[in-house]
This record gives sequence, C-alpha cells and structure tokens, in this order.
Amino acid sequence: MDATSDIIGDWVRHAAAAARDASAILAQMPAATRNAGLHAAAQQLRAASASIVAANAQDLAAFDRNGGTAAFRDRLALTPARVEAMAQGLDDIAALPDPLARVLADWTQPNGLHFQRIATPIGVIGMIYESRPNVGADAAGLCLKSGNAVILRGGSDSFHSARAIHTAITAGLRAAGLPDAAVQIPPATDRAYVAAMLAAAGQIDLIIPRGGKSLVERVQSEARVPVLAHAEGLCHTYIHAAANPAMARAVLANAKLRRPGVCGATETLLIDAAIAPTLLPLLAADLAAAGCRFRADPRARAIVPSMDPAAPGDFDTEWLDTILSVAVVDGVEAALAHIRAHGSEHTEAIITDDPAAAQLFLRGVMSSVALWNASTQFCDGGEFGFGAEIGIATGRMHARGPVGLEQLTSFRYLVTGNGQIRP
Amino acid sequence: MDATSDIIGDWVRHAAAAARDASAILAQMPAATRNAGLHAAAQQLRAASASIVAANAQDLAAFDRNGGTAAFRDRLALTPARVEAMAQGLDDIAALPDPLARVLADWTQPNGLHFQRIATPIGVIGMIYESRPNVGADAAGLCLKSGNAVILRGGSDSFHSARAIHTAITAGLRAAGLPDAAVQIPPATDRAYVAAMLAAAGQIDLIIPRGGKSLVERVQSEARVPVLAHAEGLCHTYIHAAANPAMARAVLANAKLRRPGVCGATETLLIDAAIAPTLLPLLAADLAAAGCRFRADPRARAIVPSMDPAAPGDFDTEWLDTILSVAVVDGVEAALAHIRAHGSEHTEAIITDDPAAAQLFLRGVMSSVALWNASTQFCDGGEFGFGAEIGIATGRMHARGPVGLEQLTSFRYLVTGNGQIRP
Repeated sequence: MDATSDIIGDWVRHAAAAARDASAILAQMPAATRNAGLHAAAQQLRAASASIVAANAQDLAAFDRNGGTAAFRDRLALTPARVEAMAQGLDDIAALPDPLARVLADWTQPNGLHFQRIATPIGVIGMIYESRPNVGADAAGLCLKSGNAVILRGGSDSFHSARAIHTAITAGLRAAGLPDAAVQIPPATDRAYVAAMLAAAGQIDLIIPRGGKSLVERVQSEARVPVLAHAEGLCHTYIHAAANPAMARAVLANAKLRRPGVCGATETLLIDAAIAPTLLPLLAADLAAAGCRFRADPRARAIVPSMDPAAPGDFDTEWLDTILSVAVVDGVEAALAHIRAHGSEHTEAIITDDPAAAQLFLRGVMSSVALWNASTQFCDGGEFGFGAEIGIATGRMHARGPVGLEQLTSFRYLVTGNGQIRP
Repeated sequence: MDATSDIIGDWVRHAAAAARDASAILAQMPAATRNAGLHAAAQQLRAASASIVAANAQDLAAFDRNGGTAAFRDRLALTPARVEAMAQGLDDIAALPDPLARVLADWTQPNGLHFQRIATPIGVIGMIYESRPNVGADAAGLCLKSGNAVILRGGSDSFHSARAIHTAITAGLRAAGLPDAAVQIPPATDRAYVAAMLAAAGQIDLIIPRGGKSLVERVQSEARVPVLAHAEGLCHTYIHAAANPAMARAVLANAKLRRPGVCGATETLLIDAAIAPTLLPLLAADLAAAGCRFRADPRARAIVPSMDPAAPGDFDTEWLDTILSVAVVDGVEAALAHIRAHGSEHTEAIITDDPAAAQLFLRGVMSSVALWNASTQFCDGGEFGFGAEIGIATGRMHARGPVGLEQLTSFRYLVTGNGQIRP
C-alpha cells in the first residue's frame, strides 16, 4: 500500500467512524427531527440551485472535452428543474412513515421474558454510483430517514456536482441540528476511495452499488463488506392457455417496451402451445409495429416464421433492449422449468384467467417478485407503495441475533392484478 | 487450479445444482411432507445407531493416534445416547410451526394491485463446521424444515461420523419421498472443498460457519458467497444506580459464570458510581468465591483493591473465560458511551428498577439484543422461543426485491424481564 492509499484508507476509516456516531445519534432522534433535517436539506438545495448548476457546468465542460454519448451527458446534466426535483424528493421522503417506528414482532416466553423485535438502522452505508448526481441526494434522503449514515461515492465525471449537492445537504443538516457526518463524500476522485470502502469490513456495514453491470460486478468481486446489489433481471412473461388475449397483448407490450432498459423489463415471452397459434401472430405484430425484434425457438417460428431464430445463449441473455426471446411451452410446469433453467429469480409474470394455473405458477416461481395478470415493469419501489427505493436487490437476506427457522427464510412478493399496465 | 481442485470444483457445482433443484421441490412440498421426512430421518438415525457409533470409533482412533485435548475428544465422541439426542432433535424440529407458512405483509395499492410478502427458503446453504458431528444433523433438520438444501462440510476429524450420519438421514429422506440431494456431504476431506464452497457465488446462496474464531475469520475473509457468521460477543451488564442489589448479584453471576465460554456471556461489568461503593464489594465476593478473576479500572479498584488492574485492551477482549472486566461509570449515557467504544453490538443488559433509565438504555444500545433485568446468557434461539437455532448471527441483514426504507433497516431485540436467570 503506497502513501496515497494510506491517506485514503485513513480518510475512509475516519469517515466511517464519524458516520457510525452520526447513525447512533440519528437512530435515537425522534422522526420529527430527522424529517426536519430532510426539509432543511431540501431548502438548502433550492437555495444553492444556481451554484449546483454552475458546479455541474464544470463537470459538463470536462465531459465535452473528453467526449462520450449523448445519453451519458443527459444523465450527468443538472438544470434548475432537476435540482428542484431532488429537493422535492427529500420533502417527499420526509412525508413517508417512519421506518424505525415499527415493532416487527412482540411475544412473551413462558418464563415471563417479553420480547420485541424492532426496526433499527443498518448503520453505515457506502453508496457507490455512476454519473447521475441525483442518486446521491436520493440516497442521502433515504438513509437519513432510516437512521443510517451514508458515504456517497459518485462517479468522477460528476464530482463537482456531487460536492455542491453534498455542501447544500450538510448545510441543511447543521441548520436542523442533525450531525453533518451523516452524509459524507470523499474529498477527491481517486479510484482508491472505492477500493478502501469495499475493504472496510466492520467499519462500513453495507455497500450499495448503483450503476451498470460492470460497476456492480467489480464491486461484488472486490467487496469484503456485505453488498446489496442489483445483478441481472432476466424476467419472463408466461401467457397461459386461459389468458385473456386482449389483456395479454396490452400487458406484454408494456412489460417489454414501456422502458426496455430497466431490470423489470420482460426479456422472454413464454407462450402456451394451446394459445400460441391464434395469439402469437397478434403479439408479434403488436411488438414489431413498435420496433421490437425477436429471437424465437423453432416452435414459435413455425407459427410466425418472420421472427429471427434464437441462437444458443439467447434465452440466457438480458437484452435491456427492444429484443424479445420467444419460446412455446406446454403448460405451467414447462414454463416453470424454463424459468428455473434460464431465469435470474428477479421478476416473472403469468397471464391467465385460470386461478388454479396462476397459483401453481406463483407457488412454483422462486423469484423475488411473481405477478399474476400484470406487467413485470411493476417491479419498482414506488409501484410497491414504498414511496421511494434506493435500488432493487437481487440477493437474498441476512439475519442478526439468534438464527432460528424464521431467519433461515427469505421472502418474495406475490402480486395479483386484473391487467394493470404501468403508465 | 490443478486437476484435483478442478474435480473438487466440479463436485461443488454439481452438488449445488442438485441442491437447488431439491430446494425448489422442498419449498413446494406441504409442511406435512417435510415433517415426515424429518421423522423418517430420525428413525433411520436410530436404526443406524450402532454403525454411526462404529464410524465414530474410527474417527476417535485417528484422533487418539494424533493426540489432542480432552475437550476436543469429548466434542467428537458419539454414544448411543448422543445419536438418540440427534434423532430427537429432528423430531423436535418437525413439531415446530412451518416457517414457510407465513404471510409477512399483505397490502393493496390504489391501482388495485394486491401484494403479499411471503416467507420463502434461502435456497442452497453451505454449512462449514468443526468437530461436533451433531451439528450436521441439527443443520440438516433446520434446513429441511425451512425448505433449504444444505451441503454439510464438517471437520476432517469427524469425517467417518459425518458420513454415517449423512447416510442415515438421506435414507430417511428417500423413504419419505424427499429429494436426497437436499442434504449432501463432500466425498472426501480435502480442504479444497471448503475453498470451492466459499467461491461458489451464484451456486450456494449462503455460507454458515460454525466453529472457533479462526474458522469463522478464514471463512469471512475468503468467501465470495454471503456469510451468516458469528463473530465476537463482547457483552456488557450495566448495573444502574436504581438496581435491586439481590437481583443484580444473581443476574451478574449467571451472566458471567453460567457458561463463561458462550458468546452471550458477560465480559464486562459496568457499575454505576452511585451504587458501586456498597454493591461492588458484594459482587466481587460472589464471583471470586466461584473462581472468577477481575480486570478493573482505577475507580473500581479504589473500591475493591484486591481486583487486578485492567491493562490496555482488556475492555476490548472477549474473555470466554472466568475473567470479568470491571469499570465504574456515571449514569446511563456513560454506560452507553463505553459500550459504543468497546462493544461488539451482540448483547447488553441493564439491571435497574427505574423504567426511565431502562428505556434510555434499551433505545440507546444498537446491539442485536438488549435486555432489561435479565442475564445476557439468554441470547439463544431456544430461550427466544425459536425452538432451535443454527447459530447466532452477528452481521446485519440483506433484502431482496425493491429496496425502500423498510429494507434499509435491520432489527434488534428488546427483552424485558423481572430478574430471570438462565438455568
């Protein structure tokens, strides 16, 4: 370890220690105080709007010198409206119920000992994200509300923006009497800050990476700290023999095309052999008209020959694009077998009017979210009613304290609809 | 990677894939079927008692050739009574409520989508343990009950015992129609099986190490798979100014001396300055009479000069022995500050008749278990009413699916008693 990484390691150690103290203070504050801090941070963001946009202009100028895609530049760019949206986001988080005010279980043992399991913060969170500066403000808001302290390590492309946002948020925290060490950012852009954060086992409790696949994979392979990561979302929509055809068409189009690049987008259509001859041509025409391409198995191509043939590996590919893999299957068990063989246990949907088939599917899918008659794009904290989310976790769960049967289980979501699509 | 580790890596990959299929089958079986499997496994253990004891004799003979401590030999040794206890353990687990039958949350969104969060198995668990052969049977029972498949890697000292136990359990599973890949053990003792299990990210969902500190630390530093580990239990008992002296004496003696070597044993006594002059001499006499030694700060030694002085680092030491660190503190906040500086966030207790002081302490301690007027030795799954435990986790927790505020929290236990000590 050279002198620079020594200095950087020291910064992370001190930041994490200050963050731990800050989290202990936040955790004991009444919700009203934490909420006041969020509102004060929002107010400071609004007051600093011009300087935040000016700092962002420095980042954009550097970006323009170095070159890059228009999509990347758009993610990086801040406007007064985007700063206002960040501030509004903090006000919205303040309005959510207090997640620390929950008694998760309450029981008494025969010997008279009375037990409560109560919600408590995780502690110190390390957030590692890429170019979008608003991710830092959102993460700070969610962490403050839940009593966690956070160290925000954004992309080096957005460093000036992140620093200006951080300055405003901590000014708000100080104004409201919250510890400003609750939200910290490294003082420079060196990659070694990421390495030191990932190595800080026992100091940082949880790393949340937010960005592309390569960032997440690098974090997962390097981290000695637990990681709450989003890996792959290879989601399936299974159209059962008893599907309502109109619902199937509307839901599939939404599931694939509403935003093809999100993790909850359907990547593979499984269509039942009993309904495929009549319905698949309509589905293919709908999607093709909207610019979608196909990678189909031989049974699907026998029905719609214009679809491209699937190559080996296509059913294991998360397209994140206007491409749909298509396979014909014989019944719910065959659909489940395909999903077990090719899925990523993220989100799967069945479209059917047959409750028995739906229950078989919902019970058999081990994915974190299983939907009945609704679009896979509903896998989103806002749509779940969580108010906000810091990301989508694709791992399983840990426990603390005694690990009995209950702690050996994870959970998943069963979602029942009547054809909802996501606007 | 050499040829041997290739072969071993292949074994782990195939075992994990078979385990995943087995877990999917278990998860969909009715609880009655999983329970029948547990009873059948218990029956087979009883039927195989003689051959299990004979296999254990091979392990003991090897142990006696190599030498080792009597305590280690006792942990390794099996008798017909110990085999019966293992079988009874499986029957007891079968009698517990089904952990998969729980709806953890149930709500409907304004758009009519109905959500349930339901319990679901973790999937494939890798259990890495040391010499005690019963750990394998207990872990198999808990995993089967909760719908998980498990790969059991016991110590090489107990290999013959573990194999005989495994043979009996899988015979029971087959007899009851459960997939025998639900419980697997490596075919040989090579250390490379552990390395391959720890590296099996995406194949094994969770590693649970069970053993001494060096085993746990090695697993934590090597694993690419999430680890549910027991690290340190540096537990405190704080005797407040308003403590009932008789209760304080009984609870402290139990907390320190019932089993000094367990993680829930109190390592440090914090005693309030207001009560120390009268109570500390009595506590010291009680414990000294039972063979306990002390490492005391200057304020405590001013009251009981016969106690040894604490050296630097003593308050950061998990003794796991009949040694107690002792410090005098001024009030609840000072006790909390000491615990924050020196504790491991495992288990802490306050002894007081003042409810306001107790609430201040319970709210302020971020440890996984905080007790009021009870012994720290109650940190145990059986004492919590869990029926059984696979270990004590000292980490925090993960989530899956959308990560909102609720998923950014962990939990802890508040336990209220009236002086209970653990028999």
